[in-house]
Amino acid sequence: MSNYLGIDIGGTNTCYGIVNAEGEFLYENSIKTESVESIEDLADQIYNDVKKKADFVGIGIGAPSVNEKTQSIEFAPNLNWGDVVPLTKIFSEKFGMEVNAVNDANAAAIGEKSYGEATEMENFAVITLGTGIGLGIFINGKIVVGSNGLAGELGHTVVRRDGRECNCGNFGCLETYIAKDGIVRTAKEKLEFSSGGSMLNNISPSDLSPTEVFKSARKEDPVSLEVVDTVTRDLAFAISNLINILDLECVFLSGGISKNGNLLKRKTEKHLKAHVLPNLRDKSLLKISSLNEKNSGILGAVASIQSKMAVLIN
Amino acid sequence: MSNYLGIDIGGTNTCYGIVNAEGEFLYENSIKTESVESIEDLADQIYNDVKKKADFVGIGIGAPSVNEKTQSIEFAPNLNWGDVVPLTKIFSEKFGMEVNAVNDANAAAIGEKSYGEATEMENFAVITLGTGIGLGIFINGKIVVGSNGLAGELGHTVVRRDGRECNCGNFGCLETYIAKDGIVRTAKEKLEFSSGGSMLNNISPSDLSPTEVFKSARKEDPVSLEVVDTVTRDLAFAISNLINILDLECVFLSGGISKNGNLLKRKTEKHLKAHVLPNLRDKSLLKISSLNEKNSGILGAVASIQSKMAVLIN
Repeated sequence: MSNYLGIDIGGTNTCYGIVNAEGEFLYENSIKTESVESIEDLADQIYNDVKKKADFVGIGIGAPSVNEKTQSIEFAPNLNWGDVVPLTKIFSEKFGMEVNAVNDANAAAIGEKSYGEATEMENFAVITLGTGIGLGIFINGKIVVGSNGLAGELGHTVVRRDGRECNCGNFGCLETYIAKDGIVRTAKEKLEFSSGGSMLNNISPSDLSPTEVFKSARKEDPVSLEVVDTVTRDLAFAISNLINILDLECVFLSGGISKNGNLLKRKTEKHLKAHVLPNLRDKSLLKISSLNEKNSGILGAVASIQSKMAVLIN
Repeated sequence: MSNYLGIDIGGTNTCYGIVNAEGEFLYENSIKTESVESIEDLADQIYNDVKKKADFVGIGIGAPSVNEKTQSIEFAPNLNWGDVVPLTKIFSEKFGMEVNAVNDANAAAIGEKSYGEATEMENFAVITLGTGIGLGIFINGKIVVGSNGLAGELGHTVVRRDGRECNCGNFGCLETYIAKDGIVRTAKEKLEFSSGGSMLNNISPSDLSPTEVFKSARKEDPVSLEVVDTVTRDLAFAISNLINILDLECVFLSGGISKNGNLLKRKTEKHLKAHVLPNLRDKSLLKISSLNEKNSGILGAVASIQSKMAVLIN
């Protein structure tokens, strides 16, 4: 059986590993993404690190804003390597082997399908909650890429008409409320109108984060509970539209914010039941990804190159 | 080449026809749906009418609220044949041949893919606008049925949070605003707050219909224009969420209300551009189905049984 190199490019860290066909890591390492000057620099650094570690036959890369049709990163707001970054071209030139690039949320969904709890599911989605909001969807057992390689922009579906202004030019996008900055903004707004006494007041504004909000909410801090209620209501609203349109078996939550596991799941589920179709209200539609603690991004990237090469061979 | 019988069950009329492999009608007829007492009665009436007209080898049926997994009509609000109507079972017993039942919006989408303007498209949707709102979606070249056979409930995605109460128990569902009754309700609300002088005041309230509203709007009646603006804004809002999630190449409008062609399309397109992803704003994403004047429901039902039987043979 063959090994593959999987790379998960994130706004903060770029993690990579050599993985065997069973999904076991033979080698793993990471680089601070900020310290990387260009995509060529990244390819060089990883090449020099892995070349003597273990053999592999292909490379899968997950990254934000990947257009899977062009195999480039296009206009990623959190990366500084230029507007259009020809990911697959640079890596296949450097390594001299087959490379496949996928959107990071699609990588998470492919990972869930290959190594997680969705192995038997034909219709499901993974939502990545972090600096941005990502969505990877499987329909009829296949990943959804869309007609321009742009599918999955759940973060730019509108949850509040005429709501917060979004970078995309729209108003009220989900991302402006439930991505990291959106949650912090809501917390600050609620603090301003509260009568003081919130645990969040003990945190300096620059350190305020979704993790702190969820932590205080678990300790019954009223302002934090209010923020969590607002955030999970908006998230549930977007998920209910997704489920009512696609009749998904399950939606998995993944990414940094999803590590606030039980509280996030319980509250989102409560709001979700109010919005999904009557026949679906008794079903268990929401899960926290079990791959959260492993590196689902690397595993998904590996699964994507495995299936691409299987197609090329057959 | 073989002929097929296609049946399109609607709340008002049930149309059927014998169609050859090229999509040409060899025979066509219809029955008032209200005059049919049961699904057995419908099978008998059609059987007696078509048996001597032309041979056919299989039957496709499109109907509202069809669960494609169970092949039954389930809880259709506009049909009076019981809660669960075992469509395929009754027709295959009566005719002694292969039968396939599809949701009416899926039939319209399959018709568009087989005989319409979507023959080359892998990712598109058809929205049926009438007494209810239907949605048929193709992703990766295949119709989307969902994990419980319930995919396509665009009418029950929420366009106004805490808006109009819907039969489904939710508030603000698209259907309550842009299906036939929703449009009439909006017109009545706007008339109440207008200072009189609207052309719609010349129509008795019981005759008020989407067709009348669009007709007056074309004559620049201010109240009617306002209604059309509200309706197309809500429709565009729902379509933009659909496109941002699935990156569809095109959304076709079909069904009774879509016959208000140009005005509906122009206004919806205007609002759509305000909401879709920036990279999609220059694309032509909306079309009125060219099968509107033909019977796309029958053609779609025929295409569905054709492809089912092709799978069975191969």
